[in-house]
Amino acid sequence: MRPSESTRILGIDPGTRRTGYGLIEQQGNRLRHIENGVVITNSKAELPVRLQEIYCQLSTIIEQFQPVVMAVETVFLAKNAQSALKLGHARGSALLCGMNAGLAVTEFSALQVKSAVVGYGKASKEQVQQMIRVLLNLPEPPQEDAADALAVAICHAHSHALNDRLQQTALRRGR
Amino acid sequence: MRPSESTRILGIDPGTRRTGYGLIEQQGNRLRHIENGVVITNSKAELPVRLQEIYCQLSTIIEQFQPVVMAVETVFLAKNAQSALKLGHARGSALLCGMNAGLAVTEFSALQVKSAVVGYGKASKEQVQQMIRVLLNLPEPPQEDAADALAVAICHAHSHALNDRLQQTALRRGR
Repeated sequence: MRPSESTRILGIDPGTRRTGYGLIEQQGNRLRHIENGVVITNSKAELPVRLQEIYCQLSTIIEQFQPVVMAVETVFLAKNAQSALKLGHARGSALLCGMNAGLAVTEFSALQVKSAVVGYGKASKEQVQQMIRVLLNLPEPPQEDAADALAVAICHAHSHALNDRLQQTALRRGR
Repeated sequence: MRPSESTRILGIDPGTRRTGYGLIEQQGNRLRHIENGVVITNSKAELPVRLQEIYCQLSTIIEQFQPVVMAVETVFLAKNAQSALKLGHARGSALLCGMNAGLAVTEFSALQVKSAVVGYGKASKEQVQQMIRVLLNLPEPPQEDAADALAVAICHAHSHALNDRLQQTALRRGR
């Protein structure tokens, strides 16, 4: 990526009830906050309807803000089989939405995300929210799900920037 | 539903690796087999790519055969959290595909499906396959995942036919 180019990254924290989203713009090492929020589905609706709500609302956000990357946290340890099943449905909706909109979809572990944002892997929800506020220069910490979504977007940006630096170093050494 | 009207039902047995599908046509109490098969995803591909493969292939099947209903089995007991998460992703893909194509999406428990097809809830995979062969007058039992998909489609047809009969009885009594 050349220094003048900017990339819009959409981070997602999926859930059948609440799906957090966070948009940032990366230009070189600089990150700019664009938007964040939470898609809330109708708790009285059937599961297929709720999955479509997630899909449609994320599609609208993608159309409006035109990100080129979607970053989502991977799940290694779910509480139990029933909550894992629910989470799987919501994640599936979000991932498909990104794929069908032609975005590059990347996944990061919770450890990678927390390390990228707070500096260590066992950070609390509140620490993530506070660090997001500082890193993106926000007037106040974002809502919990939106903060997690912004965190995975930042994680993608950092890993992308790191890859760029490694490639540039390799190029210089090759000369 | 009037006796002359026919309904095409698409049954789905979702999985990240193999998703069974089965199409039947219901006309009154008669069921006719239309098509069955298995969508197999690339085992070396990343999860988002595999979810899109399921979505795209099911979309093609819906376009080709024009069902009006999608029936999918609900999951109450997954083996463990990790397999539940995987299954959730695949189910999410299938349900979304049905919703986005404008189909009525219905869900049935494994108990309902086996009871509708074999007559009791603890039937084996082989018993389901054999009963599907008999009920749909097929030359040989369908592949396991396709048989499960046809079974949930038949379950929908039976519950639909039962609802019709109940409605007709209520109408006659009301006269």
